[in-house]
Amino acid sequence: MAKKIGVILSGCGVYDGSEIHEAVITLLAIDRAGAEAVCMAPDIDQMHVVNHLTGDVAEGESRNVLVESARIARGNIQNLAEAAAGDIDALILPGGFGAAKNLCDFAVKGPDCAVNPDVARLIREMFAAKKPVAAVCIAPAILSQVLGADNVPHQLTIGTDKGTAEALGKMGSSHVQCPARDFIVDESIKLVSTPAYMSAGSIAEAAEGIEKTVQALINLID
Amino acid sequence: MAKKIGVILSGCGVYDGSEIHEAVITLLAIDRAGAEAVCMAPDIDQMHVVNHLTGDVAEGESRNVLVESARIARGNIQNLAEAAAGDIDALILPGGFGAAKNLCDFAVKGPDCAVNPDVARLIREMFAAKKPVAAVCIAPAILSQVLGADNVPHQLTIGTDKGTAEALGKMGSSHVQCPARDFIVDESIKLVSTPAYMSAGSIAEAAEGIEKTVQALINLID
Repeated sequence: MAKKIGVILSGCGVYDGSEIHEAVITLLAIDRAGAEAVCMAPDIDQMHVVNHLTGDVAEGESRNVLVESARIARGNIQNLAEAAAGDIDALILPGGFGAAKNLCDFAVKGPDCAVNPDVARLIREMFAAKKPVAAVCIAPAILSQVLGADNVPHQLTIGTDKGTAEALGKMGSSHVQCPARDFIVDESIKLVSTPAYMSAGSIAEAAEGIEKTVQALINLID
Repeated sequence: MAKKIGVILSGCGVYDGSEIHEAVITLLAIDRAGAEAVCMAPDIDQMHVVNHLTGDVAEGESRNVLVESARIARGNIQNLAEAAAGDIDALILPGGFGAAKNLCDFAVKGPDCAVNPDVARLIREMFAAKKPVAAVCIAPAILSQVLGADNVPHQLTIGTDKGTAEALGKMGSSHVQCPARDFIVDESIKLVSTPAYMSAGSIAEAAEGIEKTVQALINLID
């Protein structure tokens, strides 16, 4: 049986949803490793819609995170509210502003952020079952908030950005600097992280770190 | 100087725009080959918007092809109306229904389709300059219409779908059957094609054909 890897998407587009390159490279790496991606997203409105040509917020527009995430998943996606750790072997969260705007509100509130209840629930279920979790780009902020609130010591990376690293430190993470082509593993709780576009200057650079992260995540499955 | 590869996008999502996996795998393969992707899309409304969760047309919604394509390009994209063959070394068209709904109307009119004027202009400029062109998935239908109208003999593939292959034959193509992991080159006019999700059962299968196609395209640059 192929191992099942949950992939939490947060919309479709770097400025208001999942970073598309990171999400697709994750799906490709999972398939190439002989595992099966199980895409999921919360059925909630996006924080806002950003016009990716101009960078401006599209006033008056609204889009649904699950519906837009379905674009990346080619329609093969489930409502995160129905996802359970018992149905998957590992979990990965690609980045993009959607991770910090829709899955939690770190983009607005920094270390005082709150995490979407279903995202937090699934992450806690995974750690309780000792199943591995990976986070890409800014998504480690979500893990930082959840693990910090539970007083679980852990190491992770969002790359080299000092301000973001300090915010994660305030939530309870031990931040480790890491280049985009590499990744960090905390074996004590089976947590993998990579900076991707938090640091990457090119898609190939982001891809190298994500491919290594997916392999490390799968290697951590019992 | 890195070779510049024009990438014509047609929106963001398999059912009404660019097939996202195909587009991202194309961008990654270009970067890994040491070339530079130049993303471009027409500044026109999509034929329609499809809810990718349900598969239904989202009545009353409208989206712009250039604005939505910018999601895949992370904002780094130009208006196709301003693109010229003199500025690029090769051109590639990823697939998705956007190629057959927005860049031309093959999805509606089959072999009687018309191609967007700027798409047709740039393709003709490329062939006139003897610069290579590649088309992925259903995008060869666009090449078929343009080359057929100009009575240019050529070989290409959209995989193994008989009905689609016959429609391309009516427009003037010699269709060659090809599996998703492979590609077809017509060296006489420097045209490369691969079926991708026209035939592929997985993202890894589509990726193999696209990666080979991008390498073949770059090898055809003088």
